[in-house]
Amino acid sequence: MQISIIGLGLIGGSIAIDLRKRGFARRITGVETNHLHAHTALNIGMVDEILGLNEAIENSDLIIMAIPANETISLLPKILDRVNDQIVTDTCSIKGNITERIKYHNKRANYVASHPMAGTEHSGPWAAQSGLYDGKAVIFCDVEDSSPEALKIVRKMYDYLNMRHIYMNAYNHDVHVAYVSHISHISSFALALTVLDKEKNEKNIFDLASGGFDSTVRLAKSSAEMWTNVFENNAENVISVLDTYIEKLKEFKIAIFQNETNKISDMINKANRIKKIL
Amino acid sequence: MQISIIGLGLIGGSIAIDLRKRGFARRITGVETNHLHAHTALNIGMVDEILGLNEAIENSDLIIMAIPANETISLLPKILDRVNDQIVTDTCSIKGNITERIKYHNKRANYVASHPMAGTEHSGPWAAQSGLYDGKAVIFCDVEDSSPEALKIVRKMYDYLNMRHIYMNAYNHDVHVAYVSHISHISSFALALTVLDKEKNEKNIFDLASGGFDSTVRLAKSSAEMWTNVFENNAENVISVLDTYIEKLKEFKIAIFQNETNKISDMINKANRIKKIL
Repeated sequence: MQISIIGLGLIGGSIAIDLRKRGFARRITGVETNHLHAHTALNIGMVDEILGLNEAIENSDLIIMAIPANETISLLPKILDRVNDQIVTDTCSIKGNITERIKYHNKRANYVASHPMAGTEHSGPWAAQSGLYDGKAVIFCDVEDSSPEALKIVRKMYDYLNMRHIYMNAYNHDVHVAYVSHISHISSFALALTVLDKEKNEKNIFDLASGGFDSTVRLAKSSAEMWTNVFENNAENVISVLDTYIEKLKEFKIAIFQNETNKISDMINKANRIKKIL
Repeated sequence: MQISIIGLGLIGGSIAIDLRKRGFARRITGVETNHLHAHTALNIGMVDEILGLNEAIENSDLIIMAIPANETISLLPKILDRVNDQIVTDTCSIKGNITERIKYHNKRANYVASHPMAGTEHSGPWAAQSGLYDGKAVIFCDVEDSSPEALKIVRKMYDYLNMRHIYMNAYNHDVHVAYVSHISHISSFALALTVLDKEKNEKNIFDLASGGFDSTVRLAKSSAEMWTNVFENNAENVISVLDTYIEKLKEFKIAIFQNETNKISDMINKANRIKKIL
């Protein structure tokens, strides 16, 4: 199969590596406006060639978009304008605003909304790695709006990445990811800002980082471009989760202030229930 | 050297394993009121014997306390009442209330306040592991109040655990750990509570957990007994950090609500500076 990947960062790059290695892609074309990323991807053999968007579309069976949400929203209709039989999918962690944008496009059936739930806090083609997706979940949204043929090809592609399939409508997807992914990132960004604000002596932050801080703050290294886009496009759900989160923190604060040890202990015991789920 | 370890959980157990393996301890006595923990520690050869506190003190050169903060505060003066030349240290992640409690004890010099900055979210002797402390930092507090001989022995003990030494007064220690450890745990407990509250369908939490949630929520599995004690004994600092943290979260919320993408992007870029430190 001839595939094009638009965006050769962590997400697109990691897809390229495994689709080639595992024999799904015969030839991989990269579309990448960042020259350094394009050059790197070509140099390390991640892609066979770098082409402009239109030429890439013409020469592809499958087009995988791995770019931030706003770019996906603006580019997807333009890509659908140009496809014949080509199949298009994306990798964004928000889905409502994307599916909404092309709901009535006459090539809507050629598009499959998908979200591979994997990543690291690093970015760029240098961060791409084989096995990133193995065993993780991919969410397919609003599959009734995709043609059976398109869905079959995209599902097969994710099978080559060893991903578990989950089906959801775009609205439910966006609510769920606000809880299990987006809030974790805000929590981590805010934690980093809190510590950077107060700890002027950066040597101490480093020396004391083994107390749990390193694990909770890992996500704070994540890309500003990607996450600004995500929060913007999932604002309503993210704000609702943030409200609950701030409420829980205030409950802790009040319980600590009033020295209600039973209350604190109860809250921690309840939080411990997450053990059974993860 | 003949050592006693009071509390054979993750912390005390991991100390026992490496002090024996690396030849620091000739004989290890455990003091443990939880019968299941005591039995397990004896069975797996973590300790040579389980004794009552008084007998353990009599037979030891060095006594290591690895129990929650409140128990340490209540037990330390009683132990110092009974020591002759024996040296005593503890492992608590709060120091102010402990050093305050025995400030004027006539055996104060026999005690070294130490905090090995390592751990996992698991607890009990089953969670103990070799290498837990390797390369991590241990903080010594108010060392001018300990005798040179006591300090020498306790430092040597932590050298056998391969830990880097840091010196701080107890007050500064408690401020720093509030930022780099205690707030991370509250952040994680609150995150777990938020998700458990809203996600009634627990299958979804599991399936979607690869989006970063697993990393930020790891600490939410930590022991209620230990952490209730910590928050209680470092209340003032923890509340001050919580205030800043909640402020940062609100800034995110308002920026997202008002769709100020530049502001969101700026905040994330600032948070990214944590990369250079960790």
